Amino acid sequence: MGAAMFDALHRRVRKRGQPPGTVTYVGPSRTSSVALEAIIAGPDGVHSETPASPEACAVYDSPARAPGAPGFVWLNMDGLHDPDCVTRLGHVFHLHPLVLEDIVHTGQRPKLDDLDDALFVVLKMLRYDEERRTIVDEQVSFVLRRGLLLTFQEKAHGDVFGEVRKRLLASSGKLCKSGPDYLMYALIDAVVDNYFVVLERMGEDIEEMEEKLLRAPTPEELETIHALKREALFLRKFVWPLREVLARLEKGGYDLVDEATIVYLRDLYDHTIQVMDTIETFRDMLSGMLDLYLSNVSLKLNETMKVLTIISTIFIPLSFLASLYGMNFKHMPELETEYGYYVVLGVMACTVAGMLYYFRRKGWLGGAS
Amino acid sequence: MGAAMFDALHRRVRKRGQPPGTVTYVGPSRTSSVALEAIIAGPDGVHSETPASPEACAVYDSPARAPGAPGFVWLNMDGLHDPDCVTRLGHVFHLHPLVLEDIVHTGQRPKLDDLDDALFVVLKMLRYDEERRTIVDEQVSFVLRRGLLLTFQEKAHGDVFGEVRKRLLASSGKLCKSGPDYLMYALIDAVVDNYFVVLERMGEDIEEMEEKLLRAPTPEELETIHALKREALFLRKFVWPLREVLARLEKGGYDLVDEATIVYLRDLYDHTIQVMDTIETFRDMLSGMLDLYLSNVSLKLNETMKVLTIISTIFIPLSFLASLYGMNFKHMPELETEYGYYVVLGVMACTVAGMLYYFRRKGWLGGAS
Amino acid sequence: MGAAMFDALHRRVRKRGQPPGTVTYVGPSRTSSVALEAIIAGPDGVHSETPASPEACAVYDSPARAPGAPGFVWLNMDGLHDPDCVTRLGHVFHLHPLVLEDIVHTGQRPKLDDLDDALFVVLKMLRYDEERRTIVDEQVSFVLRRGLLLTFQEKAHGDVFGEVRKRLLASSGKLCKSGPDYLMYALIDAVVDNYFVVLERMGEDIEEMEEKLLRAPTPEELETIHALKREALFLRKFVWPLREVLARLEKGGYDLVDEATIVYLRDLYDHTIQVMDTIETFRDMLSGMLDLYLSNVSLKLNETMKVLTIISTIFIPLSFLASLYGMNFKHMPELETEYGYYVVLGVMACTVAGMLYYFRRKGWLGGAS
Amino acid sequence: MGAAMFDALHRRVRKRGQPPGTVTYVGPSRTSSVALEAIIAGPDGVHSETPASPEACAVYDSPARAPGAPGFVWLNMDGLHDPDCVTRLGHVFHLHPLVLEDIVHTGQRPKLDDLDDALFVVLKMLRYDEERRTIVDEQVSFVLRRGLLLTFQEKAHGDVFGEVRKRLLASSGKLCKSGPDYLMYALIDAVVDNYFVVLERMGEDIEEMEEKLLRAPTPEELETIHALKREALFLRKFVWPLREVLARLEKGGYDLVDEATIVYLRDLYDHTIQVMDTIETFRDMLSGMLDLYLSNVSLKLNETMKVLTIISTIFIPLSFLASLYGMNFKHMPELETEYGYYVVLGVMACTVAGMLYYFRRKGWLGGAS
Amino acid sequence: MGAAMFDALHRRVRKRGQPPGTVTYVGPSRTSSVALEAIIAGPDGVHSETPASPEACAVYDSPARAPGAPGFVWLNMDGLHDPDCVTRLGHVFHLHPLVLEDIVHTGQRPKLDDLDDALFVVLKMLRYDEERRTIVDEQVSFVLRRGLLLTFQEKAHGDVFGEVRKRLLASSGKLCKSGPDYLMYALIDAVVDNYFVVLERMGEDIEEMEEKLLRAPTPEELETIHALKREALFLRKFVWPLREVLARLEKGGYDLVDEATIVYLRDLYDHTIQVMDTIETFRDMLSGMLDLYLSNVSLKLNETMKVLTIISTIFIPLSFLASLYGMNFKHMPELETEYGYYVVLGVMACTVAGMLYYFRRKGWLGGAS
Repeated sequence: MGAAMFDALHRRVRKRGQPPGTVTYVGPSRTSSVALEAIIAGPDGVHSETPASPEACAVYDSPARAPGAPGFVWLNMDGLHDPDCVTRLGHVFHLHPLVLEDIVHTGQRPKLDDLDDALFVVLKMLRYDEERRTIVDEQVSFVLRRGLLLTFQEKAHGDVFGEVRKRLLASSGKLCKSGPDYLMYALIDAVVDNYFVVLERMGEDIEEMEEKLLRAPTPEELETIHALKREALFLRKFVWPLREVLARLEKGGYDLVDEATIVYLRDLYDHTIQVMDTIETFRDMLSGMLDLYLSNVSLKLNETMKVLTIISTIFIPLSFLASLYGMNFKHMPELETEYGYYVVLGVMACTVAGMLYYFRRKGWLGGAS
Repeated sequence: MGAAMFDALHRRVRKRGQPPGTVTYVGPSRTSSVALEAIIAGPDGVHSETPASPEACAVYDSPARAPGAPGFVWLNMDGLHDPDCVTRLGHVFHLHPLVLEDIVHTGQRPKLDDLDDALFVVLKMLRYDEERRTIVDEQVSFVLRRGLLLTFQEKAHGDVFGEVRKRLLASSGKLCKSGPDYLMYALIDAVVDNYFVVLERMGEDIEEMEEKLLRAPTPEELETIHALKREALFLRKFVWPLREVLARLEKGGYDLVDEATIVYLRDLYDHTIQVMDTIETFRDMLSGMLDLYLSNVSLKLNETMKVLTIISTIFIPLSFLASLYGMNFKHMPELETEYGYYVVLGVMACTVAGMLYYFRRKGWLGGAS
Repeated sequence: MGAAMFDALHRRVRKRGQPPGTVTYVGPSRTSSVALEAIIAGPDGVHSETPASPEACAVYDSPARAPGAPGFVWLNMDGLHDPDCVTRLGHVFHLHPLVLEDIVHTGQRPKLDDLDDALFVVLKMLRYDEERRTIVDEQVSFVLRRGLLLTFQEKAHGDVFGEVRKRLLASSGKLCKSGPDYLMYALIDAVVDNYFVVLERMGEDIEEMEEKLLRAPTPEELETIHALKREALFLRKFVWPLREVLARLEKGGYDLVDEATIVYLRDLYDHTIQVMDTIETFRDMLSGMLDLYLSNVSLKLNETMKVLTIISTIFIPLSFLASLYGMNFKHMPELETEYGYYVVLGVMACTVAGMLYYFRRKGWLGGAS
Repeated sequence: MGAAMFDALHRRVRKRGQPPGTVTYVGPSRTSSVALEAIIAGPDGVHSETPASPEACAVYDSPARAPGAPGFVWLNMDGLHDPDCVTRLGHVFHLHPLVLEDIVHTGQRPKLDDLDDALFVVLKMLRYDEERRTIVDEQVSFVLRRGLLLTFQEKAHGDVFGEVRKRLLASSGKLCKSGPDYLMYALIDAVVDNYFVVLERMGEDIEEMEEKLLRAPTPEELETIHALKREALFLRKFVWPLREVLARLEKGGYDLVDEATIVYLRDLYDHTIQVMDTIETFRDMLSGMLDLYLSNVSLKLNETMKVLTIISTIFIPLSFLASLYGMNFKHMPELETEYGYYVVLGVMACTVAGMLYYFRRKGWLGGAS
Repeated sequence: MGAAMFDALHRRVRKRGQPPGTVTYVGPSRTSSVALEAIIAGPDGVHSETPASPEACAVYDSPARAPGAPGFVWLNMDGLHDPDCVTRLGHVFHLHPLVLEDIVHTGQRPKLDDLDDALFVVLKMLRYDEERRTIVDEQVSFVLRRGLLLTFQEKAHGDVFGEVRKRLLASSGKLCKSGPDYLMYALIDAVVDNYFVVLERMGEDIEEMEEKLLRAPTPEELETIHALKREALFLRKFVWPLREVLARLEKGGYDLVDEATIVYLRDLYDHTIQVMDTIETFRDMLSGMLDLYLSNVSLKLNETMKVLTIISTIFIPLSFLASLYGMNFKHMPELETEYGYYVVLGVMACTVAGMLYYFRRKGWLGGAS
């Protein structure tokens, strides 16, 4: 996740010096080919097509179709490593060069741009990679136009749109009866729903962590808390601007977004706030756990020191006494006395008793502390 | 309480992949049956009815009753684990699918939605569970319409509305003379009043904690402070959005809320601010206590180390001296002298005196420190 | 002070379950009787009266007096433990039940309510109780109407209004020439002036603390800093809403507040900001002091450990050497040599010299550190 | 600087109980006499006069002079310990009693008051007192009227206005051609420029501090950082409200401030923001330094403990072995063997080697750590 | 970087006492000569000229050229140490003295001033100086007028504008077809792109740091983290106001900025937010790393103490026993027994076993901790 950020910086720097609006793919290089898929929802049902080339998509543009015709087209492009393909598609749909640049440049911050005849939304899909035990982000861009929704996904596999596509192709429910704005809502909703999966996964880690913490703290836990804190930090970085995007969408005032969809967007906005709330709560909990951890270390140090102090303080004087009478002076009258040894043993016993009394009074010998 | 949050995440994830507006109960499964109760306040008094089925509630809808008729109906539903029942009720009163989803999905954030002909309010009731010594939350939803108030409670037992129901059924006071908006105020007021009970319980824990802290700190206290901090964190999470809800209600501008009720809502809003204030104060106090606790540990460590240092520093040199004259060298002239032993004892006494003087000057032997 | 907050919670809980607007005194029970005093400022001078009962106050209501008549009445009530008296007074002046509830319920947050024909202001008077060495708060409520100012004080002794009353009765200065709005300003000004006394007292404690801190830190100081931090916390809780009240008053727009009084209110507002500033500065200073204190403890621990380490590190190897030649092996050639003892003494001296050199290089033997 | 704040509190308390608008000087008592100086800029040049008494200043009031006459008067009063003089001057120029009170009461927060026919600005001049090595603040008040600028300085010596006076009397540049608003700008500019001197002095202390910190940390440094933090705290307290004052002036809308002066005020506002920025940066740097310092102490403690642990852990077992064979039991077969001594020496060598290996593996013997 | 700030303070102080608008170069003195370069973009192509003197630039002023003529002029000045030259240039283009002062005074905060017929933008170019391993800042000022863009660079070498100049002179692309507003956008874009280079460099340091941190922490790392935190602090100081500048530019409403350029400025604004985001993330990461580092130190201290405690606690009692029987009393019956030695050895073994059991139960002998 942190790597993702550093990647984003590298990419941006790699394309420096080019005039603005240059469409260069700066994400990691990939081998899978770009895939285009068009789903056409018309009065006579929903069907899927695979355009041969970006140019072949021109027929999906509304002006090319009968104006006012019911239904809409969803054109999805998987994989962004072929900037040429994106450029050609952009040419077909007259997209601004900066928009194309934003689509291809995968280090974007979630945002909403109001182009004159289109809405452009960039956001981040999050997925928990079980193998690498880390959160991976993938950029998704939406271009919403009259009767047309273009979507661009960064990665070519494992998308989160499958469920929505299935529902749409089933020609059932609100999806195929509403316009592309509702479809965009449904897709963003799928993305945000996935955030909850990531959060749940993270919440499990935190819960597990917390139980461990009440037992003996180890350095590994410290690093895990640290790693979780960083994940929360990066999640927040992605969700915060998304919240703004949805707040603006939900306030309405865009011709392309139907009044009826606004209600759903408001609901979606509430979900994003819940995501934010959960992240903030995670952050607070992790901070609290870190404090608890460090306090525990501090307490244990104190306890360790008490053990050392008690043992040392009891035996060091005794050892001195023993050493004293181990001296080899010729004239040491005590050594000659018959009960000297027993007197010394008695003195030692008294010293121990005195020390123990002192420690007890200080509360150092009490049960837990 | 923390568990509650994790639960909310699990629930949300469990219902992922369903189209928005699907009414699935995602709370813990329950066995008690759903209970419907209608209280009808009319010009001829207040009485209570138990509708046989959700459909039977259609008669309570204002269009079904004579328009402009005085009085109102309060329809309360206890237990949300039967989503079918909620859906049927929603159908009867033409509620938006998203509203029904929010009612049933018990992980909602408190909020106010202005539907065209209704106000939808979600909030959290808090109860201190004495047995488990933890705060439990329960979702309560309100749908306020002309002449009708629908309330949905998550749990089927121990509700906080009992007092208000009793007052209403007694047909006395402002409650039965005002509209359903005042009833909603009275119910929310009962919920917020309960927050103070929870806060008082928490305040007692904090007070008790504070007294303990002035005595010897133990690891248990650390965990208690930590637990209290987390509780304050979660309380804040519920009360903060409630404050916003009431702020919006109090600003007025809703047809369904009477001008006369606004004064009461403002008072209620003041109470919520007081709740927030108290929570913030608790948080500040707990932080202060944690600081004090850790400082105490740190101070005690220093004290422990002083004891060890004083004892070690005094006896280690003495022991060395003793060991020195315990050596078995053939030629050690001091050993042969008549007063060697006494000289060594004298040197030792001087060393002790010197050390004690040094420690006194350093202030290590002073009373408390 | 902390106790005050917990008290407020207890009180609020104690009155739970009553319908809103019920006037129950929830403060500590008192024995002194309620006192009513009316000061009438008319064109012919200022005089004081003692109404026999709340009902007898009806004559002070402006409609009862000639309309447009110059002068005004200040009706002050000392002690709130007789809610019945407050209710009767409220009845005489047609006050809203919620207002009466707020007057009597002494756990209010400072606030300003704009009733239709009156302004209702609640604030907290602060007094430093020298005996208990703590800050006590007392609730004061103002009801400002055309030609009439009602004031309610929680406690029956030691009020802060004495000075203003004297100035008013002296019939001199701006006080008796202006209306009740200026009188209210003068009274709030007296309350805020008292805040400075409390702050000065606290500032003295902080100053004294700071001097102590530069000398040896003791655990008592830690607790004092902690206690001062909590006092600052509670002061802030009272002054922050007062600032809002004055900001709203100063912005004008209230018929009952004369344009000429606004200038004075602005001045008062500036004073409240100064109070806030001072409290924030105190908080920052106390935090800084706590940091300094803990750093000092940490430094002293390090110093303690250095002493221990230096002594141990020097003598432990020497003791070992001495013990070595204290062994009783039959065949230990060194013991037989004539100068063995002196060689060992020499080796010991070298060890000490080496250790001292090492510590000096490490900077452990330098003056201060 | 801290003292300054406590002083302000004492002063405010000392004047409690007086009616608002009472002009009592509450600053430290001074012996130097009050000085009035008038500088008259007319079409025929600039000259300076010394009015005999406050009443003699009446001729400088614009109504007294020909209306619309070019030029302006700057009347400066040094020293505020003679409140009577201020009151008389206020009487001559019809100033509001609260304004006079604010001028004389030297514990004011910087502020801007828009009187009907005048602008009243209070701000703080800061000076670094090299002798006492502390920052001293002095209150400066401005009353800007049509054709007249009144300035009041708290202290009678070492003012910051000298440079501007010289430039004005030289009758050259923009100063004497513009109105009194530009003169006020020039004077405030001189005050703010002085802030940079104070900041530079503080910056030098911080720079010096930082170099010291990279060497061995001493307790003195801790106190210096603490003192610098407090200075930054107080600077911030003075500059923050000044920023607001200038923001309001710069936004224009005051008849008395010429459009042409606004450009300069905006520049001045930028400077204040720079002052704020620098203070915030200082605060952040000082916090960082404190962290670094404490981390260093913590690291050094760890290092100290390592030295102690290494020495103790190596020699304590050896000493035990030596003591073991120093026992005087009759039957200790090892003592009789011929090579027992050498075997024990060998065992000791092995123990040391083992310990050293263990510590090396733990990384405790590595160079720096 | 820190030095840069202290420099800025020194410079500002050095010019104190001069009337506002005095053009004094206060940056470090330089020897390279000032360089003027004009690039003229006309309908007939783009060419570059080198004006002989500032006065010779008058021909580039739009009024001097045919009004409404297509094309524009970019006049760039390298090196600001010749204030006279700047003044003369300012005279030619009628720039306000304060603008000239701001151009020359290199300690400015990034800002945007709307002069009547021109836009004045100041910002900071950042460069990572590989040699000194520090970030250097350079002030760049823009004056945008109808058909003319003036740029002022502080340093005479290594500018960031080279790429744009090349693209412009190549007469290709949007650059030469658009107006000077687009050119200004392209130049600011180049500056902001450079921020990403600096951030990437810093990100690499942080990444490298993080890897080191998981291994043994050394004091050097502490200082590096501290230094990186300070760099982030200073970066933030420069980027924050730049964000405001671009926000104002992007909101439009300036005649001099074309509608078509606004889209690009919005994109640029997004980049600045990304820079801010990255800096904030760096700060959070560095804080997290510092916490981790200190926690590690604390953990290691605890571990060190455990080793010491285990060794001491085991051997100190043994040593005492050995010393005990090393005493030279005449009458010590144990010494005479045949198996006394073995009994003592047995007691010692038991003691060791007991201690080890105790430590194991305490979890001190477990693998990692």
